[in-house]
Amino acid sequence: MKTQVVIVGAGPSGLLLGHLLRAAGVDCVVVERQAPDYVLGRIRAGVLETVTTDLMTRLGLDARLKAEGLVEEGFNLATADHLIRIDIKALTGKHVTVYGQTEVTRDLMDAAAERGLRVIYEAKDLALHDIDGDAPFVTYTRDGAQHRIDTQFIAGCDGFHGPSRKAIPAGAVREFEREYPFGWLGILADVPPCHPELIYANTDKGFALASMRSLTRSRYYVQVPLTDRVENWSEERLWDELAERFDPLSDHKVTRGPALEMSIAPLRSYVFETMRHGRLFLAGDSAHIVPPTGAKGLNLAASDVAYLSDALIAWFARGDETGLTGYQARALARIWKAERFSWYLTKLMHRFPEDGAFEHRMQTAELDYVATSRAMQTAIAENYVGLPL
Amino acid sequence: MKTQVVIVGAGPSGLLLGHLLRAAGVDCVVVERQAPDYVLGRIRAGVLETVTTDLMTRLGLDARLKAEGLVEEGFNLATADHLIRIDIKALTGKHVTVYGQTEVTRDLMDAAAERGLRVIYEAKDLALHDIDGDAPFVTYTRDGAQHRIDTQFIAGCDGFHGPSRKAIPAGAVREFEREYPFGWLGILADVPPCHPELIYANTDKGFALASMRSLTRSRYYVQVPLTDRVENWSEERLWDELAERFDPLSDHKVTRGPALEMSIAPLRSYVFETMRHGRLFLAGDSAHIVPPTGAKGLNLAASDVAYLSDALIAWFARGDETGLTGYQARALARIWKAERFSWYLTKLMHRFPEDGAFEHRMQTAELDYVATSRAMQTAIAENYVGLPL
Repeated sequence: MKTQVVIVGAGPSGLLLGHLLRAAGVDCVVVERQAPDYVLGRIRAGVLETVTTDLMTRLGLDARLKAEGLVEEGFNLATADHLIRIDIKALTGKHVTVYGQTEVTRDLMDAAAERGLRVIYEAKDLALHDIDGDAPFVTYTRDGAQHRIDTQFIAGCDGFHGPSRKAIPAGAVREFEREYPFGWLGILADVPPCHPELIYANTDKGFALASMRSLTRSRYYVQVPLTDRVENWSEERLWDELAERFDPLSDHKVTRGPALEMSIAPLRSYVFETMRHGRLFLAGDSAHIVPPTGAKGLNLAASDVAYLSDALIAWFARGDETGLTGYQARALARIWKAERFSWYLTKLMHRFPEDGAFEHRMQTAELDYVATSRAMQTAIAENYVGLPL
Repeated sequence: MKTQVVIVGAGPSGLLLGHLLRAAGVDCVVVERQAPDYVLGRIRAGVLETVTTDLMTRLGLDARLKAEGLVEEGFNLATADHLIRIDIKALTGKHVTVYGQTEVTRDLMDAAAERGLRVIYEAKDLALHDIDGDAPFVTYTRDGAQHRIDTQFIAGCDGFHGPSRKAIPAGAVREFEREYPFGWLGILADVPPCHPELIYANTDKGFALASMRSLTRSRYYVQVPLTDRVENWSEERLWDELAERFDPLSDHKVTRGPALEMSIAPLRSYVFETMRHGRLFLAGDSAHIVPPTGAKGLNLAASDVAYLSDALIAWFARGDETGLTGYQARALARIWKAERFSWYLTKLMHRFPEDGAFEHRMQTAELDYVATSRAMQTAIAENYVGLPL
C-alpha cells in the first residue's frame, strides 16, 4: 500500500490529524495496534479548550459536542473549607467545555468511513523504517499476514508507549522528566456531579478533584501514595473519603453509585525533544506527558495536531517546507508553557511527602494570594482556557 | 526610668515605631546594643515600597528621601540575553523608590533629638522581664552601670539575633524556616549603575543582580555556593563576573570602582509565630526573614510597624485593645504573602544545585510565560510595589 502520510495511533490526536489531512485532500492511513473498543475504553480527561473544540468545529464534527458538552465558565480551587472561584469567562472572555475524551474519539471514529479516512485497527508488531530518508515505510502484521505501507511522512500519534518515539536514535534526543511522589485514585460513576463546576481541593488529607463528564456522569479523584493499590480501596471507602472532602465545599452532597471504572494513575511531567526526526513527526503523548492537574493532555495534543496538519497541508499543497521546519519550535513553545502550568497547579494543590511546614505555608499563602488578586486569577484562568495557538 | 513603651533596637523599624508613637504623644524609649555608627554601617536593601515612604511622609521626614531617592517605574527580569521589563507604573499605577536603608535610618536618627525620641545606644546585656504580666521591664548595662526601665509594653525591633524573640517561651511558638543552598556575594561601590532600573538575571552561571543606591552608588550581587568565601574573590574577579553578566543586558557597561563593602550573605526564609507574647510585640526581622530577592525585608518591617503603632496608639488614646489583639493576624497575612513572593522570585531567578534539567526548563518556561502575559506581569508588579496594608 502507498499513501502520503501514515499516522501511527488512532487515539484522538491520530484521528484528528487524519480528518484534518483528509479535509484538505491529503491522502493518509491511520494504523492502530488495538481494536476500536479498546481505544474507546481508555478513560481520560474531559475538559476541552477552545483550541480543541475549534478543530472539531472546523471539521464539522461538533454536533454532539455542542449538544451534550457542558460549557464551563469557571472552576474552583479550594482549601479544606472554602472555594476560590476562578471566573474564567469574566477574566478571559473564554470558556472550557466538559466533554469526555472518549466522546471526542467516538465522534472522530464514527465519521471516519464517510470522510474517507482509512483506519486499520489491530495492526500488530508495527515498525517504522527509513525515517531518515525520503521514502519511509511502516510494517505491521494483521490476521497473521505481513503488511507494508510506503509513505512520504509518518506522524507518531501513538502515545507514551508507542513505537514512534522509540524509532528515533537516542543520540538525537533529549528527555526531560519529573515523576511525582503520589498518584490519583479515580472513580467514574453514573451519578450527578456534586457541583456544577470542577473543584480542585487541597486539604490536610491531600489533593482531591470533583469533576464530571456530563450532568449524569461524575469523575472524582483523591491523592494517594504511590505505594497504594486500588485493591486497598473499596468503592464505599472511596465514596466516604470523597464525601468528607466535598460535602463541606459543594452545592450538593456527593452522590454515590457503582463504579464504571476505578484505578490509580501515576503523575508525570515528560518532554521529549526532538519532535521531528527526518520524515517522522511526533504529536501528543508520544512526545510529552503532563500531570492531569489542569487537564492539558488532550488539549496539547490538539495544538500539536493543529500545527502539524497546517505544516503537512502546506507542504503537499505548494511544497512549502516552513511549517515542517518550524513545527518543533512552535509546538514546544506551547508545550513548555502547558507543562509549566500543570506543574504549578500540581505543586499548589497536592501535599508532597518531602515538604515541610514552610512549604505547606507557601501553598496556603499562594492560595490566599490567589483568592485576593485579580491579576493572579487572570494568569491562572488564561492558562486554564488555553494559551493562544 | 519609666516609660509607656520600650522599643528594643534602633534599626529602621525601632526608630520608625518610636517616631510614630512620639508623634501621637506616646512616651517611649529606644534601647540599642550598638553605637550609632555601627547601626549606620549595616548595609541593607534599598528599594522602598510606598507603604514605607508613606510612613516617612506622615512623619514629615521625607525631605531627603524625596530629593535624593530615585523613583523607579519598572524593573527587569532577565535571561542570559534579554530583559523582560516589568512596567510597574503602567501595570499598577504605583512605583518604588530607590533609597538606601542606611539613609532611612540616618534620617530617623537625625530627627530623634528634635522630636523628643530618646534613644539609648550601647545598652549592653539587654534583658526582657515579666513580659507575661502587666508591668514588664528591661534591664541593661551601660558604662559599667546597671539600668532598668519599667514600661507597659515592649516592642521587639531588634532583628534576627536580638534578645526579644528569645524571651518568648519555646512552648508558645512555631517556627517556619527554609535555608537556600547558595549565598549572595555583594559589592557596593561609588560608580554609576549600569542600568537605570534594577536587573534580576538568571543565567547559566546563576543569579546576578544589578542594583543601585543612587545615581552614583551601585550595588551588585552574584549567586555563589554556600561553601564560597569572600576571601576567594578579588574585586577584579567580581567585576569581571559582573561585566560578563550585565554588559550584554544593560544600557551601559559595568563601571568598576573600589569596593566600599564586599561580603557574602546567606538567603533564608523564616517566620516566627507568635508575634505577641503578653506585653511583648515583635516587628520586623525579629519575627521574620525573607531572602533579599524582591527587597521585601525593610518594607515588611514597615508594615509591621504601621500596624503596631496604630494598635499601641489606639490603646493609649482610648483603651482600645482591638488593634493589639488583631496585630498578629493583620501582620502575618501580609508577611506570608511577602514570604511567598520572595520565595517565588528566588526560585525563579536562581540555579538550585539540586534541580535537574526539567526544573531548569520550568524556570525558562516561567520566564517565557512572564514575558508574554500581562496578567502574570501584573501579579509580579503588584507584589513588587507592595500589597496593600
